[in-house]
Parts: sequence; C-alpha cells; structure tokens
Amino acid sequence: MNTYRLEHDFLGEKQVPDDKYYGVQTLRAKENFNITGIAISSEPLFIKAFGYVKKAAALANADAGVLDKNITDAIVFASDELIAGKYADQFISDLIQGGAGTSCNMNANEVIANIGLEHMGHRKGEYQYLHPNNHVNCSQSTNDAYPTAFRLALYLKISLFTEALERLQAAFYEKGKAFANVLKMGRTQLQDAVPMTLGQEFNAFATTIGEDVLRMREVQQLITEVNMGATAIGTGVNAPEGYAANCVRYLAELSGIPVKLSADLIEATYDTGAYVQLSGTMKRCAVKLSKICNDLRLLSSGPRTGLNEINLPPLQPGSSIMPGKVNPVIPEAVNQTCFYVIGADLTVTMAAEAGQLQLNVMEPVIGFSLFTSLEYITRACDMLREKCVVGITANADRTREMVMHSIGIVTQLNPVVGYETSASIAREALESGKSVHQIAVVERKVVTQEKWDEIYSIENLIHPKFIR
Amino acid sequence: MNTYRLEHDFLGEKQVPDDKYYGVQTLRAKENFNITGIAISSEPLFIKAFGYVKKAAALANADAGVLDKNITDAIVFASDELIAGKYADQFISDLIQGGAGTSCNMNANEVIANIGLEHMGHRKGEYQYLHPNNHVNCSQSTNDAYPTAFRLALYLKISLFTEALERLQAAFYEKGKAFANVLKMGRTQLQDAVPMTLGQEFNAFATTIGEDVLRMREVQQLITEVNMGATAIGTGVNAPEGYAANCVRYLAELSGIPVKLSADLIEATYDTGAYVQLSGTMKRCAVKLSKICNDLRLLSSGPRTGLNEINLPPLQPGSSIMPGKVNPVIPEAVNQTCFYVIGADLTVTMAAEAGQLQLNVMEPVIGFSLFTSLEYITRACDMLREKCVVGITANADRTREMVMHSIGIVTQLNPVVGYETSASIAREALESGKSVHQIAVVERKVVTQEKWDEIYSIENLIHPKFIR
Amino acid sequence: MNTYRLEHDFLGEKQVPDDKYYGVQTLRAKENFNITGIAISSEPLFIKAFGYVKKAAALANADAGVLDKNITDAIVFASDELIAGKYADQFISDLIQGGAGTSCNMNANEVIANIGLEHMGHRKGEYQYLHPNNHVNCSQSTNDAYPTAFRLALYLKISLFTEALERLQAAFYEKGKAFANVLKMGRTQLQDAVPMTLGQEFNAFATTIGEDVLRMREVQQLITEVNMGATAIGTGVNAPEGYAANCVRYLAELSGIPVKLSADLIEATYDTGAYVQLSGTMKRCAVKLSKICNDLRLLSSGPRTGLNEINLPPLQPGSSIMPGKVNPVIPEAVNQTCFYVIGADLTVTMAAEAGQLQLNVMEPVIGFSLFTSLEYITRACDMLREKCVVGITANADRTREMVMHSIGIVTQLNPVVGYETSASIAREALESGKSVHQIAVVERKVVTQEKWDEIYSIENLIHPKFIR
Amino acid sequence: MNTYRLEHDFLGEKQVPDDKYYGVQTLRAKENFNITGIAISSEPLFIKAFGYVKKAAALANADAGVLDKNITDAIVFASDELIAGKYADQFISDLIQGGAGTSCNMNANEVIANIGLEHMGHRKGEYQYLHPNNHVNCSQSTNDAYPTAFRLALYLKISLFTEALERLQAAFYEKGKAFANVLKMGRTQLQDAVPMTLGQEFNAFATTIGEDVLRMREVQQLITEVNMGATAIGTGVNAPEGYAANCVRYLAELSGIPVKLSADLIEATYDTGAYVQLSGTMKRCAVKLSKICNDLRLLSSGPRTGLNEINLPPLQPGSSIMPGKVNPVIPEAVNQTCFYVIGADLTVTMAAEAGQLQLNVMEPVIGFSLFTSLEYITRACDMLREKCVVGITANADRTREMVMHSIGIVTQLNPVVGYETSASIAREALESGKSVHQIAVVERKVVTQEKWDEIYSIENLIHPKFIR
Repeated sequence: MNTYRLEHDFLGEKQVPDDKYYGVQTLRAKENFNITGIAISSEPLFIKAFGYVKKAAALANADAGVLDKNITDAIVFASDELIAGKYADQFISDLIQGGAGTSCNMNANEVIANIGLEHMGHRKGEYQYLHPNNHVNCSQSTNDAYPTAFRLALYLKISLFTEALERLQAAFYEKGKAFANVLKMGRTQLQDAVPMTLGQEFNAFATTIGEDVLRMREVQQLITEVNMGATAIGTGVNAPEGYAANCVRYLAELSGIPVKLSADLIEATYDTGAYVQLSGTMKRCAVKLSKICNDLRLLSSGPRTGLNEINLPPLQPGSSIMPGKVNPVIPEAVNQTCFYVIGADLTVTMAAEAGQLQLNVMEPVIGFSLFTSLEYITRACDMLREKCVVGITANADRTREMVMHSIGIVTQLNPVVGYETSASIAREALESGKSVHQIAVVERKVVTQEKWDEIYSIENLIHPKFIR
Repeated sequence: MNTYRLEHDFLGEKQVPDDKYYGVQTLRAKENFNITGIAISSEPLFIKAFGYVKKAAALANADAGVLDKNITDAIVFASDELIAGKYADQFISDLIQGGAGTSCNMNANEVIANIGLEHMGHRKGEYQYLHPNNHVNCSQSTNDAYPTAFRLALYLKISLFTEALERLQAAFYEKGKAFANVLKMGRTQLQDAVPMTLGQEFNAFATTIGEDVLRMREVQQLITEVNMGATAIGTGVNAPEGYAANCVRYLAELSGIPVKLSADLIEATYDTGAYVQLSGTMKRCAVKLSKICNDLRLLSSGPRTGLNEINLPPLQPGSSIMPGKVNPVIPEAVNQTCFYVIGADLTVTMAAEAGQLQLNVMEPVIGFSLFTSLEYITRACDMLREKCVVGITANADRTREMVMHSIGIVTQLNPVVGYETSASIAREALESGKSVHQIAVVERKVVTQEKWDEIYSIENLIHPKFIR
Repeated sequence: MNTYRLEHDFLGEKQVPDDKYYGVQTLRAKENFNITGIAISSEPLFIKAFGYVKKAAALANADAGVLDKNITDAIVFASDELIAGKYADQFISDLIQGGAGTSCNMNANEVIANIGLEHMGHRKGEYQYLHPNNHVNCSQSTNDAYPTAFRLALYLKISLFTEALERLQAAFYEKGKAFANVLKMGRTQLQDAVPMTLGQEFNAFATTIGEDVLRMREVQQLITEVNMGATAIGTGVNAPEGYAANCVRYLAELSGIPVKLSADLIEATYDTGAYVQLSGTMKRCAVKLSKICNDLRLLSSGPRTGLNEINLPPLQPGSSIMPGKVNPVIPEAVNQTCFYVIGADLTVTMAAEAGQLQLNVMEPVIGFSLFTSLEYITRACDMLREKCVVGITANADRTREMVMHSIGIVTQLNPVVGYETSASIAREALESGKSVHQIAVVERKVVTQEKWDEIYSIENLIHPKFIR
Repeated sequence: MNTYRLEHDFLGEKQVPDDKYYGVQTLRAKENFNITGIAISSEPLFIKAFGYVKKAAALANADAGVLDKNITDAIVFASDELIAGKYADQFISDLIQGGAGTSCNMNANEVIANIGLEHMGHRKGEYQYLHPNNHVNCSQSTNDAYPTAFRLALYLKISLFTEALERLQAAFYEKGKAFANVLKMGRTQLQDAVPMTLGQEFNAFATTIGEDVLRMREVQQLITEVNMGATAIGTGVNAPEGYAANCVRYLAELSGIPVKLSADLIEATYDTGAYVQLSGTMKRCAVKLSKICNDLRLLSSGPRTGLNEINLPPLQPGSSIMPGKVNPVIPEAVNQTCFYVIGADLTVTMAAEAGQLQLNVMEPVIGFSLFTSLEYITRACDMLREKCVVGITANADRTREMVMHSIGIVTQLNPVVGYETSASIAREALESGKSVHQIAVVERKVVTQEKWDEIYSIENLIHPKFIR
C-alpha cells in the first residue's frame, strides 16, 4: 500500500509517495512535461555532476557562515550518494522541459534534501530541518547550478568520446601499417587519378581523426568556464562574499575537472557560445566520420560489380531476399548516427539563438541534444572500430592490377614528355582501350622501356620520386 | 534457468533463448547495433504495420498459389497477434541500424514465424514448417516490406498529430471568441502599430494551425504510395504475377489506409521524396508553433516590467531563488520540441540525400527522426492546449489603456489629415510625451473632438471603418 | 554636372540626384543597408510584380473614390512602365534590409511617383501632385503590398523552375527509352543486387523529377493567397470598403496569376507558412536532384578503376596535372547548387521562426533566399540537361558482362531451390571466385541447364517472370 | 572589331578574344558553369592569394632546377601584378563550379601565363614560351594550389572580420561605461527577475563578442595548414624533392601569413575539417550576434506599449502607412545576415560530407559560402556599430521606476526572511497589485524600514551585498 506525505510550494499542496526522495516540485514537473519520455536518470553523469555542484556549494556556504555544520554535513553526505551513482531513479524529469532547468535543479535539491533528512534522523519532507531551497540551493539559482552541472557532465562525456576517437584512430593506424605495401589507384572526383597505397589511405583516416581529437580537447577546455555565484542573473544577489571563488575551487578539487570562474557573470549566465562551439565541433567530427564511412562503403562495394578493394567483416545476412548478400551495415549505421549529430547541432543552434536577455531558457534541449549526440557518436566510434575496422582486409592483387591497367599512371610521364603529349596518350588509351605502356613505349616510343621500368617500379609508384 | 535453441544463418550458428520469439538474425542485429538504445518496441504502430504487411503478403501469396493454406493461416494468425498489439517486447532491434531495415524486417519475419509455429503445434525454431525468409517474407524483400510498414505507421501517426493540431486549433478559436472585445495594440517589428483585438490575435493562431492541418493531410496522402511487389530493387524479381496488386488491395482493406501501388517500382524503391516532404511539412508546423509560443511568452512577459497583456496559468514555481516567479514553462517546452523537430528534419534531409543507386540505405534514421518528431510534437500540442491555452486570461484594462496611450493610433488620422501631418503629430508626441489627442485636437485643432470620437470609438478601433 | 533636388521625410531633408526616379527614403535605405551588394534590380520579376500591385491598388482606389482620375492614370502609366521592364536600375535597395521591406516598397512608391509626375507634366519630387505615400501607397502598407509583390514574383519564378524540371524530366525519359535494352546490375547499399536495365534507371530519374513537378505546382498554388487590403496589421485600417476584393480581382486580371484574398488578414499579414513550404519543397527537389547527380557520378566513375557503366560528355580538361582526365563537372556543379538550396532553406526556416506578433520582419532575407535558390536551381536543371544528360552514352557490353559475372543473380534461384540453398551457393561463389552457373548447374546440379537458360535469358533478366 | 586567337586543349580548339588574358580552359568553364553569376573577380583577396601561390611555386621550382630563370621571372612578374590587384576582371569563372576548382586554378594559370608572355615580349597564347600547365602550374595540381590560395584568402578575410568584431566590441564597452549607473530590471524567461544595470548588460555584449574574437583567431590558425607539394592526391607525384618545404617557406614570406606544410598530405588534400570548423565558428558568432540584436530590438520595443528601455537612433521612416513609426532596422538587417551565415554553414556541412576518397570536389561551394558569409557578416558588424550601437541612448528614469515598481526585488529579502515568506509576499503583491514594500514593511512588518533602506539603496541594487 502506497502512503503519501503532503508537500507544498507557493502554488499549493500535493501528495508525494512516501518512498520517493523527490518532492512536490519534481512531481509538478513530471506532470507538466511529457515530451521525450527520456528522464534525467538516463544521464548518470549529469546526476553525478549535480552531486559535485551541491557539495561544493554547501562547503562554500559553510565557509561563508551561511550554513550550519549539521546541515552542511547532511548535504555533503547526500551529494556523495549521488556522486557514488545512487538514487538515479529519483531523477524523473523529462530532459526537455520548460523553466530553463528549474525542474531539474529542484529535482536535485529535493532528492538531496530528503536523503540528507533521513541521514540526520528526520523523515522525508521535514524541510524545516533541511530545506531544498533555503539550504541545498543556498546561494544558488537554477541559473548557475544547472549550467554548471551541465558543463561538468559534458566535460566527462567529452572525455569518453575523445577516448573512443583515439581508439578508433589507433585502429586505423594499425590498418595503415598493415596495408603499407598495398598499391592501389587514387581517385579524385571518382575518376582514376594516380597511384597510392591503401596504407596511406588508412593512415589518412587516422590522421584526420587525430585532428578531431585535438579540436575536441580544445572545446573541452571552453566548457570548463562556470558561473557559480552568479545566482539569478549574474549580479550575485543573495550570495555571500567570497562564496563564488570558494565554490569553484571546491568544485575543481572534488571533481578533478579544471573548472574556472567566469570573469563576466552576467554574460556567463546567458551565453551558450561554448555549447554552440561544442556542438559545431561534434558536427565537424560527424562530417568527417561520415566521409570515412562513405569511403569504406565505396571501397568495399561489389563484390563483383563494384570497386572491391577491401572487405569489411560480414556481420549478418544482408538481405531477406538476396542470398549471400552481405552489407556494410556498420558504416551505414555510423553514417546515420552522424546525420543525427548534424541534425542535433541544428537544434542546438536554434535553441542558442532563441536566448533572450539575461538567460537562455532553451538550455534543456541543448542538454538533450548534446547528451544524446555525445552518447550516440561515442558508441558509433567503438562500434565502427570493433565490428568493422579491425577486421578489414585488402584485395591487394585486384588493386595492383587496377593500377597497372589504368590510364591515370600517365601523369607520371608529364615531367618526361610534357602535359600535352601525356594528354594525347591518355586520350588514345581511353578511346582505343590500349594500355599506356603500349602507346607510350611500343607505339609512340616517347619513353624507353628502361625509363618506363624506372618510373613504374612498385617502389616508385608507392613513393614517387621526381624523375624526368 | 535459461534454455536455448540453436539457430543458424549463412554466417553460422547462434544460441537463441528459448522463450524468445525472435531468432538468429534479430540477435545478430542486437549485438551489432547499439546506438540509441531505443528499440522498435517503442513504436507499437510500426509493429502493428508489420502485422498488416505480412498478413497482406501472405494472403496475396496464397492467392498466387505460392503459399499453402496451413502456412498462410499460421502467418495470418501471427500477424493478427501483432496487429492486436502483442509481442511488442520481441522487437528489440535499435531504431538506428545498418542494412536499410533488414534487421527490422527479419525481426518481424522471425517473430511471426515462431508465433505461427507454436500456433501450428510446432516448436519455435522449427523453420522447416514455417520459415522466416521462404514463407513469412515470401515474394518480399526488406526493400518493399520495410518501407511499406514504415509508411503505414507514419500514416497512423500523422493522423494522431493532425488530431492534436485540430484540438489545439479549437482551443485557440475558443479563446479568440472569449477575447473578441479585448482591445489591444498591434505591434509590428516590436514597435507600436495600430489597434486590434486580442480575439483577432488568438483567432489568427487558430487559422494558422488550421492551415497546417491541411498541409499535413496533403502529405499524409503522399505517404500512401507503397511498393509491395517491388522486391529487391523494383523489378519484382521472385514475385508471382498479380501478387503486387493483390497484396496492396489486401493491405488497404486490412488497415483501412488508402494505400496504392506505385506506378514506377524502381523509383519507388529508392525514393525518399515523401519522407522529405513530410519532414519539411512538420518543420513548417514546428516553425509556426514556435512562433505562436514566442508570442505567448512575449504577451505574458512581466508581470510588472513586460507587456503583461495575458496571463498563462501558473504550473510550478518558476525559480529556485526568486520567490513568486512563475515562468511560461509550457510554451518554452514547446519551443524546444519545435527545435528538435527542425533539427530532425535536417537529419532526414542528410539521410535522403545520401541514398545511392537502387536503395536508400539510410531509411532507418529517417524512421527514427520522423517517429520521434511526430511523437514529441503531438505530445507538445496536447500539452500546450491542456496546460496553457485553455487557461489563458486577458488583462483587458491594461491592454485598452495602452492603446489609448499610444502614438500608433495616429495612423487612423491619415485619411483625414494626410500622412505628413500625422507623422508630424507622431513625432511631437514622441518627443514631448504628450498624447495624440492633446496635440491633434486640443493644440493643433486639425481634427474636431466630434471627428475624434467617431474615429476612436471602441467599435471603430476594433472594426475600423474608412473615415475621412 | 550632377544636380540635385531636395526631398524630405519626417527625419529631415536629403539631396537626391535629379536624374534619379527614386527619392529620399530609397536613398536612406541605400546608405543604411549594404550587406549583399545585390540590389532589387537583380530580380526583374519582383519589380514587374510591384507594377502589378501598384496598378491594381490604384484602380481599386479609384473605384472606391479615394483617388482622382488623373492621379490614378499617372500611377497606372508608371506601373505599366515597370511591368514592361523599364526603370529596373532605379531599384537600388539591397535585397537584405531591415524594416520588413519598407525600403523596397518605398523604392517602388517613389519611382512610380516620379515616373507619374513626369507623365503628368510635373517635375520629379513635386509630390504635392502625386505622393509616394498618400497616392501610390494609398490604402496600402508595406505589410500587404510587399508580400503580395513578393508572392507574384515567386509564382512567376516557380513557373520557370517547373518548366526547367519538365525539360529535364523529358531528357531523362529519352535516355530511358534509348537504354531500354541495356542490361546492368542493380545495386543496393553499393553491393551487387539483381539485374535491371539502364533504361529503368533513367526512367526512374524521370519519374522522380515528375513527382517534384507535381509538388512544385501544389506549392505554387499556396503562394497565390495574398493580403491586399490588410494594410498595417490585417485590420484593414485606412482602406476603404470594398477595396480589398476589388484590388485582388484587378491583380488577378492584370497578372494572369490566380491570386485570391486571404480569409484571415491578421494571420496572412504575419504568416510565412507558404514560404517555408515552398522552401521545403525546393529542398526536396534539391535532395533528389543531388541524389541523381551522385548516381551519375558513380555510374560514370572510372574509366578503368570505377563502375564505368555510362559516359558523360567531356566538357573541359579535368585536371591541371593529370593528362586526359575528364571529370563529371556538370553533376558536381549541380550537387553544389543543391547544397546551396538546402542551406538557403535553413535561412528561410530561421527567418520564419523569428517572426513576432503581427509581422514577420525577416521577410527580406526569405526573399533573398528564395529568389536566389529558384534562380540557381533553375539554371542548374537546364545546365544538367543540356551539357550532360542529353549526351550520356552507355557501355552496354561492360554492364552486361558484369551482370553475368555477378553472384547477385543467384536471387533468381530462390523460388526454385529456396533461400538457404541459394545462400550457400552465393557463399561458395564468393569464397572460390567461381560463377553461380558453375556451382549451381555443373557442380551441385540443383538446377538443370534448361531451367538455367529459361531463368537467365536476357528477356527474363530484364523483365523477370516468376519461375519456379 | 574583336580579333581572336586560337587556343586548344585536348578537347579541341577554341577562339579566345585577343584582348583577354584568360585562355581556352577559362572560356570552357565560363560556358559550362552559369549558376550564381558571381565570378571569382568578386573576391579580390582570392586572386591576390593565387598571386602568392603561383609566385611561391615558381621560386621553389626555380630552386629545384625545374624552371628556367626567364620563365620564373615572367611568372613572378605576372604574379606580382595579381598581388597588386590588377587583372581582376580576367577572373570570370563562376564561384560555383564543377571540377573541384580546376577552372579557377586554370584561370589563374592562363592569366599569369599571358601576362608573363607579354612581359617576355611574346604574344598572348604563345604558350610554347610560357605554358599555363607546364610552367605556371609546374609541380602543382589544382588539388594543392586551389585550396592553398583559398586558405590564404580566408585568412585575410578572417582578419577583416575579426577587426570588425573588435570594433563592435569596443563600441559596446563604451556604452557599458556610459550606462554604468542606469538601474534596470533583469529578466529571465521574459519574466521580471532581479535588478542590474544597463551598463552590465552592454558590457556583457562586449564580453561575449570578445570571446568570439578569440575563437575566430583560433580557427584562423587552423586555416594556415596548407598542402603545397601534394600535387594530385598527396603523394607528391611530379613534384621535385625539397620543393614542398621551399614553396611553403616562400609562401609565408611573401604573404606574411604563417602558413605551414601539413604533415599528412594525403589527408590534407581531401580534408575539409578546417572549413567546417571555420564555418561552425562563424555560425557561433552569428548565433550570438543575432541574440544581441534580438535583445536590442526587445529593449527598444515600444515606444509606448513595449519595454522602451533604450532608444536606437532613427534612420528612416519605419512605415509606409504608420506615421512617425521608426523601426529597429539595423538590428533587423543584422539578424537576417546571421540567418544567412547559419544557412551557409549548412551548405558547407553538406559539401564537406560529400567529399569522396582522395578529394573533396565540392570545395567551390564551400568557398562561395565562406566568402559570402565572411563578407556579409563583416559588413553587418560595422553597420551595427556605426548606425546603431554608437547612437543608443537610455531611458534611465523609466528603467529605474520599473525596478522599484517590480515584484522581483523581493528576491533580495530571501536571506532575511526565507524563500517561503518571500514567495508569499510575492504572491500577494501579484494578486493585489500592492508593492513589495507595502506588504513587507507596512503590513506584515517582516522587515524594518531601516533594513529595507539598506537593502534597496541604489548602491546595493546595483552592486548587491549579502545582507541578512
């Protein structure tokens, strides 16, 4: 049998199930917002971040003499519980919510208050001893506590993503080494260009991901600027002197994240620039990851009527009707994840632009978008590595044969015979179907066989020297 | 204790928990794709739609003589179970998946086969009696069955959204009637313009939503074109003669949805135009809904330092620090939902553009985006209506006072005194702080008091006649 | 030697070069806005549309008795000059401008006034005889005249685009017919699927463009709803009775465009739904056109190390270094144009969402985006047709050979030997490099040579019958 | 009378007007591409950049012994002419073009060759003495020369933009100082929050722009990585040893731009990450600039029925019908420019994602988008500063009066009376219309008049101390 306690706020009273640690305001939010069905509880790092924020605030408040020791202790205890990953199921607010995160912050305040109350030997709801607003939220507003917790959570999630990128980068480097001697045709505009190695191609994938790692680390630093002590709009109203700096110092110590206090708290309280930058950088990663997957799918196309340069590991039957068909399902899923991230970036952009005056009220959907994007793309990187990249093999015979059969190798004759003669040989090859060798060496004799062998040695094809 | 049955496909064998109705291919997909954590089971109408598709196909196959009666009956039975909403938990594939929906289609094929097998008195996995590919998927490919089921599900979800729009429209009309005599200042470019009524403003919200309803109905018709019988790429390979037309006829009868067969099955099998159009039309709805919410937030701004023309129902304390503050949380949540929809439209756009040759392999993320967008925006419409619009009240005294105090009413003098004289009066009013009446009637005497009373009667302000 | 006339508005006086037909307000706008450097003069159909609007308004004003005959005649004369394409160089305002188009409307008002004044025998600037606001703009506001002219211009430009689409569609149909017997491999997910003809592929391009034509025609109808008579905010303040209906009737007669009066002028004055729908539909066209160009580039990849199924006409040397290289430059340019259109759609979306209260002040950038998008994509369609599609040739020998050499044709054995046996044959073919025929007929003997010949006749490959 | 010279390439011969410095390939491009009508000549910094690139390449080629002195001298001379801003009208290729910039690079090669030929005493077209491909393009490909020139041009344009941002930042700081003592109500979610100063608000605008300056400088550094020496695909085929490093060294010296050679030329030749990052950072700037303009428009709304806290300088009559109306036309135009930039970012995103294998062929539309975005937003910043920000004035009496009349000031009572009592006072004030002072001091007596005076002194409202 469910029992209830009666809680109230200035809109009136409400029954709260007695076994719940959240309170009246969380309950109102639950009733008010039902958009995504995805609750804060799905983001454990966000809850952990609230633990850090509330603990740091309590300690700074104690230092400033505005919270008693027993109350401080209770808040610290409860916050540590959140940091330890407990009570996640009490965070029931929908991630998309009105009120600029007030419901989310109050959810944290209420849960901490009730954990703390029980720890103090009181009953849940006896807020006269430990109050969600007066004590847990002391010297804070949603407008500083919520974005600070959000940024801590983003920091942690960016680390996870960056690590996944690095693992993926390493996997591509491995393949780059393995394919170092696989000669293949390079293509520009999908047209045969000049030779290269498959190793160079996979190395370049590693290089390009490595650059994304650097960009993510830069934007991760941007996200460390917080506005604790700003309270409602950045003027710091109701926060005791010295509190802001102390709070941020505690926050950095507790979390191990190098957070720093913003120099302009008015601006910091409404600005979403760092989120837009983060989202834009993730979009960049998505664009480049998608390009890589497009290439993997193209290079593995076939097996008989495509490029068929590489083989992706077969993971599942590729068709409910075409027997034996195996599809590049993993790159396909990664492409789609990238499109999600790019779409989410637009959501972030719209939301950021919609901020007005002293606060951006659209921050919850920014949170929703960044959290899901980071989560999905991190998983996609690991999936791509584990289930695809590490198992890729090369069809080295076929790729070498295609090179020697190509017209594009005529480029290497330019320094010897000039662009126009080369072009004329190319044109004849294209029209007649003859090989470049046949035309250049046998028929036109513009190059000796000896020179030909020098230019078209495997070694020179792979690492072209300037020969003329 | 879990027991397993052994299933195999051409990639090898795999243990499937014996109580599960899905089979080896679903299991592979589950292992392969873990992006969103959101499974097909979250979209019951999609599963229902698969029920219709598989049943219609079975019946058409039976007519064509390619399925025996007992097999047909078993498929029909199992499909009806899905249509009835059962076995949803057996649809475990992630909504974002590679393979263009093959995993999703095979999940349906396997679940139906195993339900059917038990119904026939066999055990799950005894596919020799009822095979996921040979029987349930008979005369089909993922490439026709999956998009057809997808379209049926979209059709049903569009209906739900359209109904929510209509309810919202009705709520705005009601307010339009209630506020028919509330005189207020119209504003263009946020600058005082000319008078109107609050009723006209709310009526216009209803009108604009009504137009969205029409657009959604048009695009709903587009979505009814299906490609059953196309099989792999639209050539209809492996489908018996007459099957396609029959199958679509059954589908329409069973589902009550006016599906029709595409005239060009090659094109229909890869084309995503209808999805892009649907997504674009939803984007339109989102843009307009967001505009309405922007207006509601602006009109209710204050209470003391904003426009304060209307009051939104208070739903929850608006701040963890500012006592008594109540925020427009519902419109804010709707704005954010709209930004989600607009972002999702970009995802759809990217995915649609990425289709290559005979199939768009990115269809699953199109599905994910459209399903979530439709779901979220439908909920947002109902939330806006229930928790906000129906409870809006007007501050009629304040709005009328603002009109009479404004300079903008000078516009109505144009036909009497000319644009330039009006402009001069306006300028003096602005600079001196005097009222238009004071300058026009008392000081400059360009209009008599009698004429003034005629022009500025409440009746004429609300329904301006042409007076000169 | 330049001479000047002195004009004034309520902000003060300004010298206007005496040979210019625009006046003081246009000059201010020119000084105020310098963003794109692209003036209204670049859109002759927009100027023509203003001619229609001002003429229709003058006639309706005359009917209502609020404009004298000689003034009406002068406005009609001047408007006809604009309709005839004259004085375009007098439209100097930047297309991106603040003021919701006021500068644009005043530019038209001033030019018409001064043309009219000269026609009446007066000098430019003698506005006491014919005034830009009191007469040319009589019973109008920017807020009805500007969007109405905008819509007329869009209507005309949509027609041009639709015609270009139809020409392109016809060109693809022609190729569809020409390639009707070119057997080739269909591909799904870039993997070999089942056979089809190149004719079917090009026919499908025609089909898909044909659907876009229908969508464009639908949205063209949406754009015909206008709000003449709304004046400032839709209440019709300062417009005489009967004027609105008359004005729209004249407008339809003069322009030949089936414009109709909006039923809710308040809504019509701020609503941008039709622009968003138009932009979204153009985005759809762009997505699909881009997909076609992606396919053309893929199919013509090579010549030696790509698919090489078709040849695009060579238009220019493809490389400054690689002799003989010819690139698919036309489809590439079309792809890029499509990306422009998709980006412009986002601009339109943002602008539409930003409308507030009784007017969307961002309409000029909507105009800029739609005008340039329509212009560019229309040219792109013609370019694609003329310089690429009509000259495409097929490599029929190669494509047929690829089909017979493929594994994908095993699908056609399903109805005869079952999916699992087919899958096993496919797997062996893939691993051994053997042909399907070798395994199925010679080694495993699951199909007789006779049956094989029936299934794999060219006729049956092109138009597959159901054989088992 | 026009005379012609005959030029040829491997597609055949073509007449080139004899007074033109471009040649056959430029002419083909002109005929092939007619999308935007905006030619390279509209971007003088791009042409200048080509001057630097071709000069640096010539010098490095000379050092490597692959170009003779007289040829080198001629190229250097011609390149210097471009650097000096001459011959811009000879760059006639449309900015949107197929071929990955080949037409653009060949346009530069041909113009330089012909300038050089005349300088050598030859006639235009006598390419045997100085050849566009063999000499001007020596050791280069479009695929390294074009993006390198592109990056140099971007670098220069980023500097111009950043300087405009800094000027705008300074203007906001000035206003921040001027308004340092203007007390006003802060607003969150458009609802009255707590007091602040208008100076803080304008300072925050300066702060937020200052952060954009830093971001732009970071991304400007990213853009300095170039791939000269990569030639066709990054393998450096046909480039002499040592050339790449030398060329980049010359380039840095000549241009004064700290360009550096990419470590992975394969990756650098296709990667568009830096463009995406630049575009994303510009999007960030646009989002934030748009937010500022939204605020300026909101704060200046009225004059009688809006917030009316500040006055923007009147620039032009705001309406063709409403006399005396003045609109915030400059912020409106800036908003629209921002929407353009955001849309252009999507174009860049799509184009970047579409790159395949060894080259991104969509680079021209990336160039078009970034060039126009940078140009427009730079102009918008200067316009905003000159025509709006510097002339803004404050309505200090009104804003102070609104503060004292507000309920939001009750927040400052929290530390004294507790959140719940404050909330109750707020609620009563809202419902009764009474002031906070009346309820708190006079009626409920929860605060003494003395304490009230301490808390609500102007000094404490502007710089709140923690009082309890």
